[in-house]
Amino acid sequence: MIDRPTRIAVRRTARSGGVVLSGERIVPEEVPIAFSYGGSTHAVMMGTPADLEDFAIGFSLTEGIISDLGQVAGIEIVENESGIDVQIALVDDVATALTARRRSMAGPVGCGLCGIESIEQAVRKVPDVAAVSLKAVYRDIVEAVALLNGAQPLHRETRAVHGAGFYLPGKGLLAVREDVGRHNALDKLCGAVIAEQRSGAEGIVAVTSRLSVEMVQKAAILGSSILVAISAPTALAIRTADEAGMTLVALVRGEDFEIFTHPHRIQPGSISDVA
Amino acid sequence: MIDRPTRIAVRRTARSGGVVLSGERIVPEEVPIAFSYGGSTHAVMMGTPADLEDFAIGFSLTEGIISDLGQVAGIEIVENESGIDVQIALVDDVATALTARRRSMAGPVGCGLCGIESIEQAVRKVPDVAAVSLKAVYRDIVEAVALLNGAQPLHRETRAVHGAGFYLPGKGLLAVREDVGRHNALDKLCGAVIAEQRSGAEGIVAVTSRLSVEMVQKAAILGSSILVAISAPTALAIRTADEAGMTLVALVRGEDFEIFTHPHRIQPGSISDVA
Repeated sequence: MIDRPTRIAVRRTARSGGVVLSGERIVPEEVPIAFSYGGSTHAVMMGTPADLEDFAIGFSLTEGIISDLGQVAGIEIVENESGIDVQIALVDDVATALTARRRSMAGPVGCGLCGIESIEQAVRKVPDVAAVSLKAVYRDIVEAVALLNGAQPLHRETRAVHGAGFYLPGKGLLAVREDVGRHNALDKLCGAVIAEQRSGAEGIVAVTSRLSVEMVQKAAILGSSILVAISAPTALAIRTADEAGMTLVALVRGEDFEIFTHPHRIQPGSISDVA
Repeated sequence: MIDRPTRIAVRRTARSGGVVLSGERIVPEEVPIAFSYGGSTHAVMMGTPADLEDFAIGFSLTEGIISDLGQVAGIEIVENESGIDVQIALVDDVATALTARRRSMAGPVGCGLCGIESIEQAVRKVPDVAAVSLKAVYRDIVEAVALLNGAQPLHRETRAVHGAGFYLPGKGLLAVREDVGRHNALDKLCGAVIAEQRSGAEGIVAVTSRLSVEMVQKAAILGSSILVAISAPTALAIRTADEAGMTLVALVRGEDFEIFTHPHRIQPGSISDVA
């Protein structure tokens, strides 16, 4: 049972319109969250202490430790004063494979980016989603972002966290997850989608943040063929989406947006249709 | 010699005001950048391929590998197709200490956050800057952010990167560095400040991003006692700054801002004074 709050009121001095006042602001909490497999810590992330089971499943998926929900045998969440240890039990053959992978990583070669020691490993090939036949209309892009913006209770209170949503064209949002970190928000969403026994191929992943290459990697690993962001993409994110056959839409502002790769999945439809 | 561009024009389809047009947008490049010490890769970061010497020095400083510029014996930048390897030579005793630290990290315990394997290590104690006697007036806060906003050429073209600046009260900006990643931008700035033989205690660190705990850690390691951000802080960033004796100012918008910790360093002065 997690009893840490996700946000907290702090005292601060505000200068506003030339007047200096003391008062409160609600800020998001940030907690070290460790993921342990078989009793060994794999990574420590700074994140929002909520939806930790989804985070554990999504992190395990996007890091390539598991390929489906059935490979997780159990999740236990252990609080301590300095942080939260999320202890993940894997089914036997997956646990054995992880131990072997760790052994090959060990040695005096340093740490690398979350255990990935070389540049080649850091830019690992992402799954190809070119064959995913999902179709959407302009209205879906606008609607996915509008609904996401309206479904972030922590952001509404703090104006300081990221959100990720899974949107089914013509139907609406299946899930939204929030976190102080944009990678974490997307990992939590990936976990929520597969925990619901849904396939990433069914829907659009929408995020409130910028699109760096890791966001494209995570969406592709989930199996989603359309990734939508409120902010801008990097050149490497665009190249990676292009190679993966993913439709990348960004800079969604009201009814305006920009399509960077594989635009064939997005048809005009009627923008005035309400989904 | 780095010949990779920091930004690139891409073709995209834009829907704007109900009209759909094909055209170009300039997006920031994002490249895997490896840091190697003594021939072993220590970490791979995704970042903007610019100011790599500053990045190497700043990363080495904020990761606790070096404590001053004199401990770096040389930096060589090696390009390859998949990314950039920044090869850092350390003076003998520092190189020996790093090898010993790596050896103690090695083993089948996973990777942790950039080589830090436990929660306790992830929330390492930050240097105390309570004794730093820097003083500033309200005008300095406003001016630091206004100057930073005006000194980001890559952001001006792409609207998609973070900036970090070092501001001397009453004098102006000493340095500004940009990156697609906010942690990288601050590491580059830390490197630029110590490469100029300046002390972090002399000035204010200003960043365009949100303030998570790692940003407070990096500014404190540089020795700066005032950290200013355009966006909001997390609760852990505030607690960490409070414990470190650091003045934390955030949500700077025009002439408005909020002071979260140790407000004694910031005096009203006259807001209408031009620094």
